[in-house]
Amino acid sequence: MRTSIATVSLSGSLTEKLTAAARAGFDGVEIFENDLLASPLTPEEIRDRTADLGLTIDLYQPMRDVEALPEAEFARSLRRARHKFALMRRLGADTVLVCSSVSPLAVDDDALAAEQLHRLARLAEDFGVRVAYEALAWGRHVNTYDHAWTVVETAGHPALGTCLDSFHILARGSDPKGIEDIPGDRIFFLQLADAPLMAMDVLQWSRHYRCFPGQGGFDLSGLLAHVLRAGYRGPLSLEVFNDVFRQAAAGPTAVDALRSLLVLQERTRPALPDGVALAAPPAPVVPTGVAFAELVTPDVVPVAGLLGALGFTRTARHRGKPVDLWQQGGARVLVNTGPAASREGTALTAIGLESPDPAAAARRAEALLAPVLPRRRALDDAALDAVAAPDGTEVFFCAPIGSPAPSGPRAASAGPEPRRWTDDFEPVDAGVPVARPAGRGSVDRIDHLALTQPWHQFDEAALFHRGVLGLTGQESVDVADPYGLHRSRAVTNADGSVRIALGVGPAPTDDGARIQHIALATDDVAEAARRFRAAGGRLLPIPANYHDDLAARHDLDAEELAVLRDLGILYDRDAHGEFRHCYTETIGRVFFELVQRDGGYRGYGAQNAPVRLAAQHATGRPGR
Amino acid sequence: MRTSIATVSLSGSLTEKLTAAARAGFDGVEIFENDLLASPLTPEEIRDRTADLGLTIDLYQPMRDVEALPEAEFARSLRRARHKFALMRRLGADTVLVCSSVSPLAVDDDALAAEQLHRLARLAEDFGVRVAYEALAWGRHVNTYDHAWTVVETAGHPALGTCLDSFHILARGSDPKGIEDIPGDRIFFLQLADAPLMAMDVLQWSRHYRCFPGQGGFDLSGLLAHVLRAGYRGPLSLEVFNDVFRQAAAGPTAVDALRSLLVLQERTRPALPDGVALAAPPAPVVPTGVAFAELVTPDVVPVAGLLGALGFTRTARHRGKPVDLWQQGGARVLVNTGPAASREGTALTAIGLESPDPAAAARRAEALLAPVLPRRRALDDAALDAVAAPDGTEVFFCAPIGSPAPSGPRAASAGPEPRRWTDDFEPVDAGVPVARPAGRGSVDRIDHLALTQPWHQFDEAALFHRGVLGLTGQESVDVADPYGLHRSRAVTNADGSVRIALGVGPAPTDDGARIQHIALATDDVAEAARRFRAAGGRLLPIPANYHDDLAARHDLDAEELAVLRDLGILYDRDAHGEFRHCYTETIGRVFFELVQRDGGYRGYGAQNAPVRLAAQHATGRPGR
Repeated sequence: MRTSIATVSLSGSLTEKLTAAARAGFDGVEIFENDLLASPLTPEEIRDRTADLGLTIDLYQPMRDVEALPEAEFARSLRRARHKFALMRRLGADTVLVCSSVSPLAVDDDALAAEQLHRLARLAEDFGVRVAYEALAWGRHVNTYDHAWTVVETAGHPALGTCLDSFHILARGSDPKGIEDIPGDRIFFLQLADAPLMAMDVLQWSRHYRCFPGQGGFDLSGLLAHVLRAGYRGPLSLEVFNDVFRQAAAGPTAVDALRSLLVLQERTRPALPDGVALAAPPAPVVPTGVAFAELVTPDVVPVAGLLGALGFTRTARHRGKPVDLWQQGGARVLVNTGPAASREGTALTAIGLESPDPAAAARRAEALLAPVLPRRRALDDAALDAVAAPDGTEVFFCAPIGSPAPSGPRAASAGPEPRRWTDDFEPVDAGVPVARPAGRGSVDRIDHLALTQPWHQFDEAALFHRGVLGLTGQESVDVADPYGLHRSRAVTNADGSVRIALGVGPAPTDDGARIQHIALATDDVAEAARRFRAAGGRLLPIPANYHDDLAARHDLDAEELAVLRDLGILYDRDAHGEFRHCYTETIGRVFFELVQRDGGYRGYGAQNAPVRLAAQHATGRPGR
Repeated sequence: MRTSIATVSLSGSLTEKLTAAARAGFDGVEIFENDLLASPLTPEEIRDRTADLGLTIDLYQPMRDVEALPEAEFARSLRRARHKFALMRRLGADTVLVCSSVSPLAVDDDALAAEQLHRLARLAEDFGVRVAYEALAWGRHVNTYDHAWTVVETAGHPALGTCLDSFHILARGSDPKGIEDIPGDRIFFLQLADAPLMAMDVLQWSRHYRCFPGQGGFDLSGLLAHVLRAGYRGPLSLEVFNDVFRQAAAGPTAVDALRSLLVLQERTRPALPDGVALAAPPAPVVPTGVAFAELVTPDVVPVAGLLGALGFTRTARHRGKPVDLWQQGGARVLVNTGPAASREGTALTAIGLESPDPAAAARRAEALLAPVLPRRRALDDAALDAVAAPDGTEVFFCAPIGSPAPSGPRAASAGPEPRRWTDDFEPVDAGVPVARPAGRGSVDRIDHLALTQPWHQFDEAALFHRGVLGLTGQESVDVADPYGLHRSRAVTNADGSVRIALGVGPAPTDDGARIQHIALATDDVAEAARRFRAAGGRLLPIPANYHDDLAARHDLDAEELAVLRDLGILYDRDAHGEFRHCYTETIGRVFFELVQRDGGYRGYGAQNAPVRLAAQHATGRPGR
């Protein structure tokens, strides 16, 4: 279906907004009046610019406080409308949004409202314009979609229809099923916005916290299905007032926005007959494991020291690039000393996800607007499919190491069978076998990756990881750092073999020093920590007060408590099991965590994060 | 009375928090458990550090989910409590906060709650500790202060009392009058927090939006009067969870916090008998006019050009400093090319406020913790009283130019009679009289100053201007800039002769380029704009679309509309009158506004601010 976005959803000048919407791939826009008023371009210039960009102007909005007014006031409404309809002609916009009145002068009289809207529609007709009447959730007398439709029906003019806005409908808890009773051709417009479920004043909620479909808690797919079953075939248009998006760059926000509409259409499709032209991106291919994490570093010595102390062995080297593979059990870390290294120090720049069908995973990512990364590789390197996540992290889709070579279109093509990413690496010492778990306390695999997101892109990141990668989101949690509240939200696959904890700091000022970490799974964190320390590794010191509190809260035996104290191991439990974890020092912008999950514990020790963050601040190396 | 603050109200490590509280002048602190857990200091070290700083530990907090539990669970509560009481001994804290249970296991049984709290109090007594039981607004069964008191009374143990928290009481809309029915010696503790009036989930409201007394919408003075009438004489303690304060530097926040308690005591005093030792700072001396605004500039040429085009005349020069006085009617602008000038360009660094008693105004500011500025002056310069506002702006208190020389203690002292600030200036050309209003369209006085505040200090700034300077705050308004929402809140004196619009940008990232502006009052803005343009001044261009919209919205006659269009004049009206205003270009971090208020208009044209902000962005000189 056609997609559209209200200019108020994006930051910048009107022309910046139009450019961003067009670049992302939208078909049209809603012109928000304030954006037009603030633009130095004439309406004709805006019309031309929009057309040049390949966009249509699907809606001009809003007109407020038009109807249900004493006659003298309504005469002023008509006067204003005449100006606006003339403007719309210059602009080439044929539909205007009229919001239900919030004026203190408005009368609770549907007949009057209908009569005045009829007169407004007659005037609109003269200008070749149609009026879409919408119930604001806080409208003075008309504040539900069915009430608005009743007024429109009573008014009975062909140039008057209704506009549905998912926020206004769902925020009030209205049952959207009744939408199917509205003739589709009388639904002149559909505005879509999601929102986190919050108990707060609906006007504030609407003006500051709306978000794109799939980023909040509303059932937008259910609502859309009702609207399409009613017969609506106009644009799916996003109207999102959001304090963060207002500050974010328009380009990435527009991409995020369009992606949300593609995923929404995909989710809504099964509920509808085939005749409805909903977008159908390639099906998700859920990753089945973490193939590797890649560190880029300007100084390999401290990284090698840390990995060595953690029990990793440098097993292989890339044949064409300055990249080493460090391995322990199923945990693989690439250390890249190539040109991407910067003075900011060691950073986690790429992750490899094992995929049952890497090419299909990449096709889905591309269809969902993830930037596809150029394959900077030598001729005979493995063809790795990679896209950029919203935070810039490179995400590689890889065939699992133990599996047969990937199949699919590329395998079926004329060229040689594709190779696995490990095929590009040569063992550093043919005589030494690949390191394998060596008894208790060795590292088995990467438990999770903790990636701090740019402040403006937290919602976008969660939608990317869920919508594009097919992971499942967990609840967002607040974590108190000594200098502000962080938020964290994990995304996982079903068996927990891929876990990514997306974090965000308290303010955009922290974006410059985003810290990432790699959590390594072991069956015995105490033993792992002991080995690490014995090998010269430095564990993050945890205050004794923390362990005193553990003793007060839990029945841990004295011997274990002494071990936890000695090694700075933190402890948590949930309804499913227990979690023990400790941290290494930070190198550049990266640190490691050793974790032991027992009995199906599902979390990430968020309860302990404030202590960890304070301890990292105390070392002078703040974490995230 | 004694003042105290919960460590959770301040940012940083525990020792940073303690240091900030002590430096600001608090008598004691509440130790928030998480701050202790995250501290590398032992309880004994914390006790010693606190004592060294001259602070007492007035409360240890919180214990949660202690009471009204099945016996096995309560046994665990007691076990935990034993650990905590032992810790409190080491810490030297004698009172612990117990919050009413939110546990899903808690039983709705007051008798059980009372019985278990009695047992807890018996245990506490063994450790020389007392228990203060508080109703959380979202407590599972006990969530009002009177209910909590009933349980405490039923428990009947001398080591058990109640803790009152203004947020929990006022957020639920409880009538605080009943507090007077609680014996004062059974109120073990009083926690004070204000909050903006918001319709939202009370737990979220409490955890993120609390603020210091006077910064929100609660009647804290009324509540405090009830508590003191009940006979409570313990500390007045602040417990504020606030997302912004968590990020702000602890030092200024602690000063802000203590200032709020001083103002609160002052406001509460009239309601109480003299025996209650409430703070009594010198009475407010409300400023009666704007004496001057001071610009510091590294390049006087563009500033002189702009002031000249605006109709100002350089009338005098400071006798000892590189400061010129520019004047037009009652508007005075000092231009300082001294050492404070920086490469950031022209900035508004100081304001002079006319005061009926400058010395008394300064004494109040000092008593309310405003940093008193050193008087860097020559021996015979006028003794100017100045303090720093939270944003660093220097605020000078000046005798009005037309009045007799200031009286008061300084005048009564042995030295010569103090001089006026203008006495330090000599006319630049004795032959030229001071510029006076020259017909319509000349500038009469400074209408208002618009000062963008550091992001973390917006609430603090409003409290400073109201509490310290005695101005009255108006409603906070949101203003949409193309790149995020700004907020603005004006403070004024009664007759509007002093108006300061405090603004704040969308995020702390913008702090580096805080823009200020000076609005100049004229009786004919069109004429003033014409003269400015004729003199070579550049007006901020306003889009034609804006004026088309004006035509649609208002009955302005065509001739006037043409004038507004031509000169880029914006228009607004309110219930009282009309407002016409236009803007100059920006120089460095400063621009000017010409404003014409007619018929008692009270606002600042906030409705037009988005258009102005977009126009400034379009010139490449974003405003604020």
